[in-house]
Amino acid sequence: MSDISLTQQKISALLGPQGCLLTPEQRQPYEHGARYGHGRSLCIARPASVEEAAELMRLCAKEKIRIVAQGANTGLVGAASPDQSGLDVVLNMERIKGVIDIDPVDRVVQAYAGTRLSELNQALEKHDLYFPIDLGADPSLGGMLAANTGGARLIRYGDVRHNVLGLEALLIDPPGKRLDLTNRLRKNNTGPDWKQNFIGTGGAYGIVTQVVLQVHPRPQQSATALVVPPSMEAAALLLRDAERNFADFLSAFEGISQNALQSVLQHVPGISAPFEPLPPYAFLIELSSARPRSADFDLEKLFGAWLESCFGDLILDAVIDKPEVLWRIRHAISDSVRQEGKVVAFDISVPRSRLGAFRQEAVALLEHGYAGIKVFDFGHWGDGGLHFNLAIPEQLIADFPPLRINALRQEIYDLAVLKYHGSFSAEHGVGPFNQQFYARYTTPEALALASRMQNVFDPQHLLGVTRFAVDK
Amino acid sequence: MSDISLTQQKISALLGPQGCLLTPEQRQPYEHGARYGHGRSLCIARPASVEEAAELMRLCAKEKIRIVAQGANTGLVGAASPDQSGLDVVLNMERIKGVIDIDPVDRVVQAYAGTRLSELNQALEKHDLYFPIDLGADPSLGGMLAANTGGARLIRYGDVRHNVLGLEALLIDPPGKRLDLTNRLRKNNTGPDWKQNFIGTGGAYGIVTQVVLQVHPRPQQSATALVVPPSMEAAALLLRDAERNFADFLSAFEGISQNALQSVLQHVPGISAPFEPLPPYAFLIELSSARPRSADFDLEKLFGAWLESCFGDLILDAVIDKPEVLWRIRHAISDSVRQEGKVVAFDISVPRSRLGAFRQEAVALLEHGYAGIKVFDFGHWGDGGLHFNLAIPEQLIADFPPLRINALRQEIYDLAVLKYHGSFSAEHGVGPFNQQFYARYTTPEALALASRMQNVFDPQHLLGVTRFAVDK
Repeated sequence: MSDISLTQQKISALLGPQGCLLTPEQRQPYEHGARYGHGRSLCIARPASVEEAAELMRLCAKEKIRIVAQGANTGLVGAASPDQSGLDVVLNMERIKGVIDIDPVDRVVQAYAGTRLSELNQALEKHDLYFPIDLGADPSLGGMLAANTGGARLIRYGDVRHNVLGLEALLIDPPGKRLDLTNRLRKNNTGPDWKQNFIGTGGAYGIVTQVVLQVHPRPQQSATALVVPPSMEAAALLLRDAERNFADFLSAFEGISQNALQSVLQHVPGISAPFEPLPPYAFLIELSSARPRSADFDLEKLFGAWLESCFGDLILDAVIDKPEVLWRIRHAISDSVRQEGKVVAFDISVPRSRLGAFRQEAVALLEHGYAGIKVFDFGHWGDGGLHFNLAIPEQLIADFPPLRINALRQEIYDLAVLKYHGSFSAEHGVGPFNQQFYARYTTPEALALASRMQNVFDPQHLLGVTRFAVDK
Repeated sequence: MSDISLTQQKISALLGPQGCLLTPEQRQPYEHGARYGHGRSLCIARPASVEEAAELMRLCAKEKIRIVAQGANTGLVGAASPDQSGLDVVLNMERIKGVIDIDPVDRVVQAYAGTRLSELNQALEKHDLYFPIDLGADPSLGGMLAANTGGARLIRYGDVRHNVLGLEALLIDPPGKRLDLTNRLRKNNTGPDWKQNFIGTGGAYGIVTQVVLQVHPRPQQSATALVVPPSMEAAALLLRDAERNFADFLSAFEGISQNALQSVLQHVPGISAPFEPLPPYAFLIELSSARPRSADFDLEKLFGAWLESCFGDLILDAVIDKPEVLWRIRHAISDSVRQEGKVVAFDISVPRSRLGAFRQEAVALLEHGYAGIKVFDFGHWGDGGLHFNLAIPEQLIADFPPLRINALRQEIYDLAVLKYHGSFSAEHGVGPFNQQFYARYTTPEALALASRMQNVFDPQHLLGVTRFAVDK
């Protein structure tokens, strides 16, 4: 019997047939990432408890088998997919799930890492609470911590990191050692904040098994509008003015380019044009509050009066409509752009004051060096996030082979990171997909730290497919 | 010439007479902490630039001299004071100060670490912005990062950690190496968030030289009341109800015990009793908003109506008054308690739902084992913080020698940490003062990490007087 099948047998014996998937049909959905990343695993391990997960880690460490942590497999950078070797164990967390405790006075929830965001919010609903990280996918909580997901409402609530009070993680050194950081304190300055090491690190420093989150009162009223400023400079001032007027309840400030809007109108039935002709850029602004609407506190009324006061200098045109109508447009962009050709997606951020300038320069760069590729950008303008997504029309795909696309990527990232002091991965993380860019843009000083940090958490390089400790 | 005076000469040559204080008179104010910590230094080094600070670190590393980073020396745990050896160099940052840049669209400020909070807020004022960490002292920004200060408005804005976008730090290994993390991005998921290592770690992992902060629109209106709930259980429900009604603009929920209030009335002239008789506990509730008062958005009106609706079940009595009147009471507590005897201060947090229960048990513990000591507690109820401050009346001080006070401390901390899953240092940090309790309550797993982390940042133990890597 080969080493591989022997190890498979051991894992199967440890976790049972439900806990160790071996047939190609069983493995397939776990071996392909939502956007990037596909490989072959030694097996898909699905432990039913934290203790089983720890046992698995001990076994893998003993046999020097690499472990790729996986939540709901909705990540966009391939960080939860095995490589091509067939030697990685995928440690899927979907059976370690469930809400452990909700305390409505503390506004705190404790849950296992395999719990889905939708499941969490369902459990919170009866307490009029929710976890306000708004995303297109339905990730697991462990995956959300690993990627430090952001989303559309970061401007109001911060990212995942801002809302994690505690967690439990399993370390690989010593193998399977449980690190209990599950406190639920808002103030606790008793040394290094260890939990930070497990947030945004894609499972490279340990496997998150439990999370303790601060959650928020559910909004009871909201007001939304799609507005058109006279210029990108005016858009920046509009954002500033919106924050001065509504800092407390401004919950989204999203940008939508003309092409993105056009694409939605063309491909999604039942959505009518909010403006004729379509403006170069429109912004979806949302106010919301946990305080119900009343005669003396009516966001729609406050919003309407403000919009009116902005007409001329800051706003040329505006459509006030129900949140579900306007968010439907915003949420449809990603899918509809896929029908425009082969998508090249970017997840960029720059200081939000410079988004307009960056965008203009990036579009010019494309027109000059990559004619024919169309830009369908949109994003989280209020926090500097821009999904600078491109589509290569069918008939031009052959003109843009992978190497040329990679050169294009690098040119756009160079512009964002080196000139605009921005990020090549605002929300999605590193993963194998961004590995080369991580190496390119991370300073030698940070890489040196990463190398030492590897020895703290994973000296044998057994965790994950992302590599933070790289030579430059 | 002794080694010591030789080193003093070298530092003096490097930094000049302004940059190297040597006489006892010059040194004295830098060698005593605001509450705890006093010792003797080799010298007070006051570099005038980041480059001079780096040079100093290289010199100290070469000579294996320990460096104690110091900001405005307002910390409360002795973390910025030299020990008794006379061999530590105090690296004071007061000359490396000044605001570098304010971007009102980004709501971002970049400043040198020696800048005081008051200086920062003064510079921000003309942009209608502020850094909303509300404290009794006027610390330096570097000190605020080192201690991860919290304060009274954490419930609305989070702690320092939540508002740091970037920083620059000098490492001790390699000595004086500059780590540039001064980005100003709200979304940036490109690997481990290195800056977290320098927040809340009291200068033990590096010297923060620049900070980049997210700042906020200044409140334009506020409403405050001092309210009395019928019981501590009702106080928890009142907090919950306040958040449901005012989640977006609830900016403080502070607790004041009867003794604390009594002490203020007795010792601070010009403050009249808000209630007769004084209630067992009162709560200072503040709403505020960056949106100016208008007929259709008037916090005082909304607040008044809500208070009225709470009368009976959740509120027995309430005084609505100007913020400056009510905050004056709150801010006077700490000083007035000092006139009650010898103060034994605690900076505790527990999950806020359990504050009432914890407090009751802690008071009983005192009555049982430490009769005569009086409790003057107050604190940040909304985030679970409790300054459980005690005073030993003059005539009893001899009955409570240091060893007995230490035993008392440990009993209170055991209750908070072991039974109520709380913190022995909510806001102030570790420092020499809390060193023994850090060792007592930190898990072996976290201590093992701390030991490895020491090797990442400071293998020769040259930075700071706090020790995170300790044997248990």
